[in-house]
Amino acid sequence: MADAGTDAAVARLRALAAHRFVIEDVAPEINAGRYPVKREVGDSLSVFADIIADGHTKIAGTLYHRAADEEAWQETPLRFHDNDRWTAAFPLTRNTRYLYTLGAWIDEFQSWRNDITKKANAGQSVAVDLTEGRALVARARDAAKGGEDRARLEAMLAAHDAAATEDQQLAALLTEEADRLMRRHGTRIGYTRYDKVLEVVADRPLARTGAWYEMFWRSQGDDPARGATIEECIARLPYIRDMGFDVVYLVPWHPIGRTNRKGRNNTLQAGPDDPGSPYAIGAAEGGHKAVNPDWGTLDDFRRFVAAIEAEGMEIAMDFAIQCSPDHPWIRAHRDWFKWRSDGSIRYAENPPKKYEDIVNVEFYAPHGGEPIDALWLELRDVVLFWVEQGVKIFRVDNPHTKPLTFWEWMIREVQARHPETIFLAEAFTRPKLMKALAKLGFTQSYSYFTWRTGKAELTDYLEELTQGPAKEYMRVNFFANTPDILPFHLQQGGPPAFRQRAVLAATLSSTYGIYNGFELCENTAVPSKEEYLFSEKYQYKVWDWDRPGNIRDWITRLNAIRRENPALQEYDNLRFYTCWNDQILIYGKRAADARNFVLVAVNLDVTAPQEGNFELPLWELGLGDGATVWMEELLDGYRFTWTGKIQHIWIDNNRPAFIWRMTPA
Amino acid sequence: MADAGTDAAVARLRALAAHRFVIEDVAPEINAGRYPVKREVGDSLSVFADIIADGHTKIAGTLYHRAADEEAWQETPLRFHDNDRWTAAFPLTRNTRYLYTLGAWIDEFQSWRNDITKKANAGQSVAVDLTEGRALVARARDAAKGGEDRARLEAMLAAHDAAATEDQQLAALLTEEADRLMRRHGTRIGYTRYDKVLEVVADRPLARTGAWYEMFWRSQGDDPARGATIEECIARLPYIRDMGFDVVYLVPWHPIGRTNRKGRNNTLQAGPDDPGSPYAIGAAEGGHKAVNPDWGTLDDFRRFVAAIEAEGMEIAMDFAIQCSPDHPWIRAHRDWFKWRSDGSIRYAENPPKKYEDIVNVEFYAPHGGEPIDALWLELRDVVLFWVEQGVKIFRVDNPHTKPLTFWEWMIREVQARHPETIFLAEAFTRPKLMKALAKLGFTQSYSYFTWRTGKAELTDYLEELTQGPAKEYMRVNFFANTPDILPFHLQQGGPPAFRQRAVLAATLSSTYGIYNGFELCENTAVPSKEEYLFSEKYQYKVWDWDRPGNIRDWITRLNAIRRENPALQEYDNLRFYTCWNDQILIYGKRAADARNFVLVAVNLDVTAPQEGNFELPLWELGLGDGATVWMEELLDGYRFTWTGKIQHIWIDNNRPAFIWRMTPA
Repeated sequence: MADAGTDAAVARLRALAAHRFVIEDVAPEINAGRYPVKREVGDSLSVFADIIADGHTKIAGTLYHRAADEEAWQETPLRFHDNDRWTAAFPLTRNTRYLYTLGAWIDEFQSWRNDITKKANAGQSVAVDLTEGRALVARARDAAKGGEDRARLEAMLAAHDAAATEDQQLAALLTEEADRLMRRHGTRIGYTRYDKVLEVVADRPLARTGAWYEMFWRSQGDDPARGATIEECIARLPYIRDMGFDVVYLVPWHPIGRTNRKGRNNTLQAGPDDPGSPYAIGAAEGGHKAVNPDWGTLDDFRRFVAAIEAEGMEIAMDFAIQCSPDHPWIRAHRDWFKWRSDGSIRYAENPPKKYEDIVNVEFYAPHGGEPIDALWLELRDVVLFWVEQGVKIFRVDNPHTKPLTFWEWMIREVQARHPETIFLAEAFTRPKLMKALAKLGFTQSYSYFTWRTGKAELTDYLEELTQGPAKEYMRVNFFANTPDILPFHLQQGGPPAFRQRAVLAATLSSTYGIYNGFELCENTAVPSKEEYLFSEKYQYKVWDWDRPGNIRDWITRLNAIRRENPALQEYDNLRFYTCWNDQILIYGKRAADARNFVLVAVNLDVTAPQEGNFELPLWELGLGDGATVWMEELLDGYRFTWTGKIQHIWIDNNRPAFIWRMTPA
Repeated sequence: MADAGTDAAVARLRALAAHRFVIEDVAPEINAGRYPVKREVGDSLSVFADIIADGHTKIAGTLYHRAADEEAWQETPLRFHDNDRWTAAFPLTRNTRYLYTLGAWIDEFQSWRNDITKKANAGQSVAVDLTEGRALVARARDAAKGGEDRARLEAMLAAHDAAATEDQQLAALLTEEADRLMRRHGTRIGYTRYDKVLEVVADRPLARTGAWYEMFWRSQGDDPARGATIEECIARLPYIRDMGFDVVYLVPWHPIGRTNRKGRNNTLQAGPDDPGSPYAIGAAEGGHKAVNPDWGTLDDFRRFVAAIEAEGMEIAMDFAIQCSPDHPWIRAHRDWFKWRSDGSIRYAENPPKKYEDIVNVEFYAPHGGEPIDALWLELRDVVLFWVEQGVKIFRVDNPHTKPLTFWEWMIREVQARHPETIFLAEAFTRPKLMKALAKLGFTQSYSYFTWRTGKAELTDYLEELTQGPAKEYMRVNFFANTPDILPFHLQQGGPPAFRQRAVLAATLSSTYGIYNGFELCENTAVPSKEEYLFSEKYQYKVWDWDRPGNIRDWITRLNAIRRENPALQEYDNLRFYTCWNDQILIYGKRAADARNFVLVAVNLDVTAPQEGNFELPLWELGLGDGATVWMEELLDGYRFTWTGKIQHIWIDNNRPAFIWRMTPA
């Protein structure tokens, strides 16, 4: 070997030799650490890792964690789980980002302890081994620079030295205290640190658990000739609070453009009194930082936020980036928009569909140029502006049509200042794009729930969301309807379908929502479309909130059940159970502390009662197949007992669900 | 915002904005690119990736690859696979390492093409769109700096400009040539490169496919009072070649220590004429670079290698790092060994078991010190020394008791000079440690096959190996027996078990081996242990290679069938099929070109014939359930037809398998 070749080979071996262990298959970890895991304050994060070392020596390891704004790592010892897998957990006590990683090493003292014990048990001489063990303790004493630990190690050595027999000498070194002190001060041989630092976002609990009510602000009054005022909206809050909602989410409240304004039922020509779509944002009165003057002033708005808070709820804002042709940005920032070769502005389109009342901003300069910094900053500042007005929840309109990089940057910028902010991605698009938005930082996501009605597809989809890899980063907010979506099953199924979908949304996910009118079973559709006829998106509207056939009581009861049962406030604890009837869906949720178990049975057939045998999941309570359990039906409040694993149920279609709390008898 | 804060925010957005696409879930990829994927020369590597972009624009991408010793990346266009997943492949033409990665971008021209086509189909005006498309082509022409492509783009523009109608103008820009040229010269908007460069090792085909014969060199003669010479071993080669083996693997051939030499049947005291275990390496005559003088000289050894090659086979060496107490290294390199507090050397032990004829080297200085470079280099040089003598295959003894880092370094050092070298890891240890050795560079691995006998456990294990993630980096070499392992089923089952295990080993994996004596159905064991009685590991031995009851013909036929059927030379093409008898295992392998399909049925019960219905996998040939196929039984050479998916078989236990080649009738 030439010397230069040898030197290079030694350099390579030194580089490799420094990472003696394989630390792999760390969980949770998303895209090799590229994106943060999501949890909520009050959780603890359990971390698992395969730690693979050569030979038969004993290894030890530690989980490191720190809040992103702290300097010092805290250590938690890893404990052996199974099959070269190790685990430890740390608590998430603050609404912030935490970092975590791992380290592992050969535990020389435990390896020695293991060997000498086996030899002593086999009656072999351990004299030399004892001397070597004593030397390990002496090394540790030297490493423990002063203090109590050093004194204790010194005492151990003295006890060993004073002992009369080998057995007594050994006993002096094999104490629990020895284990503890040697872990702390013993040499960490082959110490290897995991090569990634991972991140977990500890959001506030509302990120996981909440009931949302979507309010179309201008339809909350009683004058069909004009939009409601903020004052009228404030008057509506007790109604929402009484149903038990946590979040009041409003469609955009900014000034609405006049150019190409849409008329009733999305027609191209607005009448002189048509108010236009609130998603055509921006007019002479202002853009994304302005309040629609028909609704009120910024001061009114602040009173509205305070009123919502006074009712124990929170406001959520609709952050829709598109602009009406009248938006002030268009004149002030020509380079934020796309201009066509004939000098006209490029309207939004998805050929052959055109959206003439909207133009989109351009995040990058033409032909793949640099990002337009000023626009990115302004959009971030729009969010920060509303945070200053008291808004902490942002439902983002169509995020999937804007660069993923923008959202990743913007959400981090905002949460670095305001970790309490919550961002809900309203993306109905390809599954991997929806997951990408969740990974890059959206707190919550819309979902396909709105279109999943069959037993198999509900089961598959919910298992993917709550038990697959997505559970680490995606929390789906199950909206039963939206201003854009009146699903066919609600159109055709009427009130039984509304009751059924409310139960499914409220109990399958820990966070769900309805859009106003759902509680009235409103289902008049544009023929053969999943759209509302005479949608309030394009016209003034007045609702009779007490109209006959409403299901306010049902929704009120559902929200109460959610609040009373911690199991329903968890997201990834959903499990499906066997029922020998494909029209009956049975599932359960168990609280983390296992003291609350809720079982739900839903009749998916809105046209007829259904009955069938099913497996009562006695095993979830640790009970045998013949056990007896107390069942409390929570919608109607009666009690009974069931004995044995196979039971029979009959579910009406008009009252299409049972929600039971199950406890051991 | 303070200016400094804004500057930092802009810096963050610029950093993120440069990676506009998410490129994720790249396959194959091991531990986020930490370890190379394994393939063989002649394969092509298919690469898949999810590429996720915002919005509805058309994207395009490329797979980059180059051999590790080349500078320039070659590009292969990605094609859309499914659900945001893209794919491309590149050929592995040389025995070397290749690097690969991906890039993706918005295809501005295809997006324009897509939009304008939809608009034109909907009868909308496309005049402005045409102007914009022409501008894209003009940009590409400017980017194509001279040459034929520029001329062609220029011609496209001229054709567009000369056209009389919008339809003709459009036609001029929507040609196949336009697609091709615009892909090459159009602006790559939002160009994003995958953030990892991945590696694939293209081993030579023997890494995947081979039949190994393990030869205990000193038992190949006919004098029970001494070990065989190299000359006598050479005389044995036609016997091995005639059975159809590819590799002749020998236990260590170095001088054997005398101190604490083991006697017959692993007794602690050797008699004066006992030769000792060949795994107690090193004596006054030399260490790991020496040939045992009882066997021959280094010159003899080179003749042996040449003789093996002349028979169309290859030699494999046993690389066992441990030393006898007489190894020259011990005196020359005191710091390579562990010395006890009483001044004695530390013998190998796994308390309470002791191995007094062996000492292990120490790869790191005591108490977690630096790696001992000189030892690492010397061990590498031992391998390189034997490579120079013509050895290209190394079976490594107990690699799991040495640092993983050493192997990763050593195998790379050797393969950088000699990519044709093959390393087989003889690790029987915990599953994840075995996988770690395979990931870090071992070409092949021993396995648990030797102890898997039931239908469920064989199926589970083989599916894990050949269809799970391990198939990308682990090739298991199925040894039916070894000098250390005479499994109970061979002890108890006699010749039917030997035939059955030979079929399983030779057809379940593309690479398999037997240790000499297997073909003689030798199964005299140390009582209640899986060890050979009077093992040749500890004594001289003479075999009657023609003794009655041998199954040489059976093995010869199996190896011939393997050579004649490409399907059996593939590793990850194994599939199991349903048989309604738990004692009958049915599986098949299909060649990559789908022209060769081999179906195997094995009776797992060595005590009685078994029969049962099974599913004939007509679908593997693309046939319907009622199709007729030609079946050729390859062990006995007869033919018949089968019609229909459900068939019945009866398998004798003495002749416990059928191997069929199945072709459409």
